[in-house]
Amino acid sequence: MNSKLQNITILGATGSIGTSTLNVLRLHLDKYKIYAVSGKSQITKLFDICKEFNPIFAVVLDITSQEKLQNLITNYNAENNNSNEKITTKILFGNDALCQIAMDKNVDVVMAALVGAAGLQPTLAAAEVGKKILLANKEVLVMAGELFMQTVRKHKAILLPVDSEHNAIFQSLPKGFKCGFDDLENIDNNKIENGIKQILLTASGGPFLHKDIHDLQNVSVEQACNHPNWKMGKKVSIDSATMMNKCLEIIEAFWLFGINDLLKNDDSYEQILAKITNYIKVIIHPQSVVHSGVQYVDGSVIMQLSQPNMQVPISYCLSYPNRFASDIDFLDFFKYNNLQFIQPNTQKFPCIKLAYEALAIRNFAGNILNAANEISINYFINKQIKFTEIYTINSQVLNYYKQNANILNQQFTNNTSDDNLQNLESILNADKWARSKAEEFIQILN
Amino acid sequence: MNSKLQNITILGATGSIGTSTLNVLRLHLDKYKIYAVSGKSQITKLFDICKEFNPIFAVVLDITSQEKLQNLITNYNAENNNSNEKITTKILFGNDALCQIAMDKNVDVVMAALVGAAGLQPTLAAAEVGKKILLANKEVLVMAGELFMQTVRKHKAILLPVDSEHNAIFQSLPKGFKCGFDDLENIDNNKIENGIKQILLTASGGPFLHKDIHDLQNVSVEQACNHPNWKMGKKVSIDSATMMNKCLEIIEAFWLFGINDLLKNDDSYEQILAKITNYIKVIIHPQSVVHSGVQYVDGSVIMQLSQPNMQVPISYCLSYPNRFASDIDFLDFFKYNNLQFIQPNTQKFPCIKLAYEALAIRNFAGNILNAANEISINYFINKQIKFTEIYTINSQVLNYYKQNANILNQQFTNNTSDDNLQNLESILNADKWARSKAEEFIQILN
Repeated sequence: MNSKLQNITILGATGSIGTSTLNVLRLHLDKYKIYAVSGKSQITKLFDICKEFNPIFAVVLDITSQEKLQNLITNYNAENNNSNEKITTKILFGNDALCQIAMDKNVDVVMAALVGAAGLQPTLAAAEVGKKILLANKEVLVMAGELFMQTVRKHKAILLPVDSEHNAIFQSLPKGFKCGFDDLENIDNNKIENGIKQILLTASGGPFLHKDIHDLQNVSVEQACNHPNWKMGKKVSIDSATMMNKCLEIIEAFWLFGINDLLKNDDSYEQILAKITNYIKVIIHPQSVVHSGVQYVDGSVIMQLSQPNMQVPISYCLSYPNRFASDIDFLDFFKYNNLQFIQPNTQKFPCIKLAYEALAIRNFAGNILNAANEISINYFINKQIKFTEIYTINSQVLNYYKQNANILNQQFTNNTSDDNLQNLESILNADKWARSKAEEFIQILN
Repeated sequence: MNSKLQNITILGATGSIGTSTLNVLRLHLDKYKIYAVSGKSQITKLFDICKEFNPIFAVVLDITSQEKLQNLITNYNAENNNSNEKITTKILFGNDALCQIAMDKNVDVVMAALVGAAGLQPTLAAAEVGKKILLANKEVLVMAGELFMQTVRKHKAILLPVDSEHNAIFQSLPKGFKCGFDDLENIDNNKIENGIKQILLTASGGPFLHKDIHDLQNVSVEQACNHPNWKMGKKVSIDSATMMNKCLEIIEAFWLFGINDLLKNDDSYEQILAKITNYIKVIIHPQSVVHSGVQYVDGSVIMQLSQPNMQVPISYCLSYPNRFASDIDFLDFFKYNNLQFIQPNTQKFPCIKLAYEALAIRNFAGNILNAANEISINYFINKQIKFTEIYTINSQVLNYYKQNANILNQQFTNNTSDDNLQNLESILNADKWARSKAEEFIQILN
């Protein structure tokens, strides 16, 4: 056992994943020191974290939040003259500060649990200095999979997936597998017979699994947010209802597990589509007990099961390659005496197919799909488009990109000759373009 | 890849496991040479194997069988003058010959697929010369677990479990786990945080899972042999109906996965009972798709699933630590859309409890239970006792041993001072005693 404490930075400490991470860490303060945390709008919650863990740094969104948090701390310290209980946390703000706590030389582990595009830059920063990254922020891979995985590989960062499905796949892969270094056919770079046939990505099916396809267009935001198994934020809940969530997870799996390395440069759109459809299979499993798995060429399937509780994958990432004892409820098999596996209905949930299409289009397609989806979800939340129109818009933007990829790639990369060139700037250009294109299609729709 | 062919001996080549092994090997004759085979009464089948694979040795039961097989071969060779097609297999017979082909210095791998006590000596012989042993012959562990595992460890044999449940557990354990060298709390001898909480041993529940407990005493041999998922021999099918099969598998798991190493010398009967009941949990899973798994301390469960086809675990053993491509049907999740997990009813199937009791009694108890069971099954097949009396007899013999263990251990070990001394002789003494004791109790019963 390490006697030295591991310093951890939690990007997004006040969110759902951040809270679960702190719950796990509370049991293991003999192994981890909470070195830095970040929060966005929940300043009181961040103050409570500072009070409990006294991290070296806390990062907030802007100067107003910084002042607010600083005041809370100053008042607290004034009331607690006992110096042992004083909060000594230094408060910083903004994107550069996020990158700073992700790259800090004292930090061993970064929990990347920001939401959306905001996490891209700090998580990339952590990869650039070869940190151990616990990745919950799936947009990092959806928006910038190629760039991020190249960075991980180049700087020998250790990448562990937090998302319950990807964590389950990771647990079901041969033990030697390293995200960013290995692909499914070449684990450890010297074993050629690991024999992985396909990744089995389970999906709860969301709140509308059994709803009639014709009733979907009139569902409300409240109905869409009412997930049967997991408590999640509004955006993720709606993604789960449209199954865009699974679409994003397919893209995430593609990058995490080196499926990209199985494609050849001259593979056609149809060839890539066939390969990826074969490699990543979605299975509807409404009970959310089986969290995903791997099918091997010898007919064996290895799967990971647990209570639907994010503390399980977080704990595995924090203890990897060992395991921490947990205080959560163990899986009671006798409560789940009816596990179902159902073929996804891609007519009812066409968003699933967009993942394979985006991966086959290559380049900025995943990024563009993700951006379009964020816009269409916003319009749905504001009741300006229907539930089923989320797919319509996402699909229209993706198809527009497919038809005009050459010109658009040049535009995103500022006319450099290599339209595969992905850097933070070109990725943000594509993201911005897709958002405005989505708005454009929404105007036409109405 | 190895360019050198691995020489394999198949003990029990004409049985169900032997046949499945040959089916797998047919696909991998670039990696394996079938060096030696054995058969008991199916001489024509053994002849066909010789014709197809031309092994160096074939071993049969006795001199009559030897002559019969030799004649078949001589006639065949006479009809096939083309020397390339001639069978050059040398035919041997008897127990010593079985040991010889298990120990042959040219042999790399031994598939131990004999049935019952007959396999004990040749499998021990393979362990004594440190072979790679693929163990299907569960009686080796039930009768002589301590002696066999000591031998494996002493001579650095590699032991891989073929039984579908134990193979599934093996696939679900951390990759470093070595049967005979590691226990569940100390894998690789230097990692203490593998975090295994318990072994989850699944059971189909057999043909009488849903039968009323009061109807069990009048079931026929035919009903007992009608297993819903697996095609097996009569003995194993009846074991599955009484759930003695699961009882034997608990004992098997106890030895394979080093659970023995977790017990202390001065642990009481009750302490051992509690420990083992906690470590090995039986789960009824009627669909036989999940083949067993491991529960970890962090709340994760890893399980192996496949079609109920013995080629899957056999293939894994033959390819371990890699995986061979298989020609069997892959698991179609959408066919199994209702996987159930049910708590075993130990009132209806009390045989399950006998495993824990036997392990807590220690010494020769597993061996004695196994012997009593073989006798009571024979009497049931011959319609001399009722189905439910299989348990009655097994339990009576086991309890008699528990009450008189000190005297009996001395008797089995020929009055040596150490009544833990297990060698082949004392094991066979105990086996013989238990058989006659079972007959004695059967006489009293009638």
